[in-house]
Amino acid sequence: MRPHGGIAVPISVKNFKLTLEYDGTGFCGWQVQKKGVSVQGLLQNALKRITGEKIHVIGSGRTDAGVHALGQIAHFKTSRGFSPEKIQSALNGLLPDAVAVKSVEEAPLEFHAQLSAKSKLYAYLILNGPIPSAFLRPFSWQIKNPLDWDAVHRALELFVGEHDFKSFQSAGTIVKSTVRKIYCVGVQERYRDHPNLYAIQIEANGFLKQMVRNIIGTVVQVGQGRLTVEEIKKIFAAKDRRKAGPAAPAKGLFLVEVRY
Amino acid sequence: MRPHGGIAVPISVKNFKLTLEYDGTGFCGWQVQKKGVSVQGLLQNALKRITGEKIHVIGSGRTDAGVHALGQIAHFKTSRGFSPEKIQSALNGLLPDAVAVKSVEEAPLEFHAQLSAKSKLYAYLILNGPIPSAFLRPFSWQIKNPLDWDAVHRALELFVGEHDFKSFQSAGTIVKSTVRKIYCVGVQERYRDHPNLYAIQIEANGFLKQMVRNIIGTVVQVGQGRLTVEEIKKIFAAKDRRKAGPAAPAKGLFLVEVRY
Repeated sequence: MRPHGGIAVPISVKNFKLTLEYDGTGFCGWQVQKKGVSVQGLLQNALKRITGEKIHVIGSGRTDAGVHALGQIAHFKTSRGFSPEKIQSALNGLLPDAVAVKSVEEAPLEFHAQLSAKSKLYAYLILNGPIPSAFLRPFSWQIKNPLDWDAVHRALELFVGEHDFKSFQSAGTIVKSTVRKIYCVGVQERYRDHPNLYAIQIEANGFLKQMVRNIIGTVVQVGQGRLTVEEIKKIFAAKDRRKAGPAAPAKGLFLVEVRY
Repeated sequence: MRPHGGIAVPISVKNFKLTLEYDGTGFCGWQVQKKGVSVQGLLQNALKRITGEKIHVIGSGRTDAGVHALGQIAHFKTSRGFSPEKIQSALNGLLPDAVAVKSVEEAPLEFHAQLSAKSKLYAYLILNGPIPSAFLRPFSWQIKNPLDWDAVHRALELFVGEHDFKSFQSAGTIVKSTVRKIYCVGVQERYRDHPNLYAIQIEANGFLKQMVRNIIGTVVQVGQGRLTVEEIKKIFAAKDRRKAGPAAPAKGLFLVEVRY
């Protein structure tokens, strides 16, 4: 009889937490798809080569095709006795240049990249000016005419708090509830000293499908004078995706950090 | 008879100065080559479409395949009456994403991007640490083991002043003199707040073929303890390219600014 009647877990099973950075430009997104190269698929293939085991890598959440990550978190379990350092250096050796493993830590067995997450922080970069940037083009949305950034900020403030974000959810994923809580929003001007670069940051306890991109697309319309701050309230009340603005392009979006 | 016996220049000829930014990753360099896509070639093709004229674009100097520019300068002459704004927006519309025209100004007819240049500033990015970066990989040289940055700096200081840089010139271009004057060198740690990113800056009145990359390759050997600061002096005296270190990879190099 096993002590405490518990399920036998081989003593050697370890749970590893990965912190990942990726340039999403060439990927079909985080999740394995029938077509295209996914970050999850690349990790699973590399870990199979390293461990000899078929390993399932679980991310904190999906990122869409073209979305980048500075701090995506994932976990996987293995019964091989590798050290975190060994896994990190083997992964960085096998993964393509567009994915970097920033850290590997051994985590408690109950740690789950998605279910244990308390909040996520996303940033969206907007290059607001007529002159393009050769280096920022894959990583920002260029909007040539000047936005009214005070109006953008006032619109963003309306999203803070617990709301039903049904109007800001794209179709395609079934969820139990469309209520989420946004903890804070912010706009950083002259991001990284670039005169026309703006970073919009949104932290929430969770995000619906394309929720950040739909919010950004909507507040940009406010900044362009095409929607009023008052109309945002009506969009919330409508609970209808068609009332909100179009999704902002994926390439400007970064998953910055997942907090546990 | 023409006044002053000068060559007749149509009144309408204008000389335009371009400031260019490019991600050199996919290019065979600045100069038109038999094979590959060059920045000069892209500009000439775009200007032909805009003006209907065959236009020769002259850069401040060549950049090698894979070298980037934040402030490459070029000029061209046209007899079409376009405004600088019109040229800039037409070029940015026609050029691929990896090239951006940051400014277009009308310059005096005697302005020459190469011959009028007083100095050029290059920067070289080194990511000095074991963990790769998904975003910096195309724009920096990753050196995993820690360099002795004090030694790198002492080595760099030896390059300041007027010297014969023959030992730091790659073969392939014939020049009248291999004497150049380096005005200043610098190392910026934690460049752009990245903990392991170092920017080495070198400003000179001119550079020989691959001179910056050959200097960087040499001072990195000093930082690795494979060459002493004293040996740098011997390398200068030898006037022999084989004595210096290997060229640093092109992808870490940026032409930052050309001063006139």
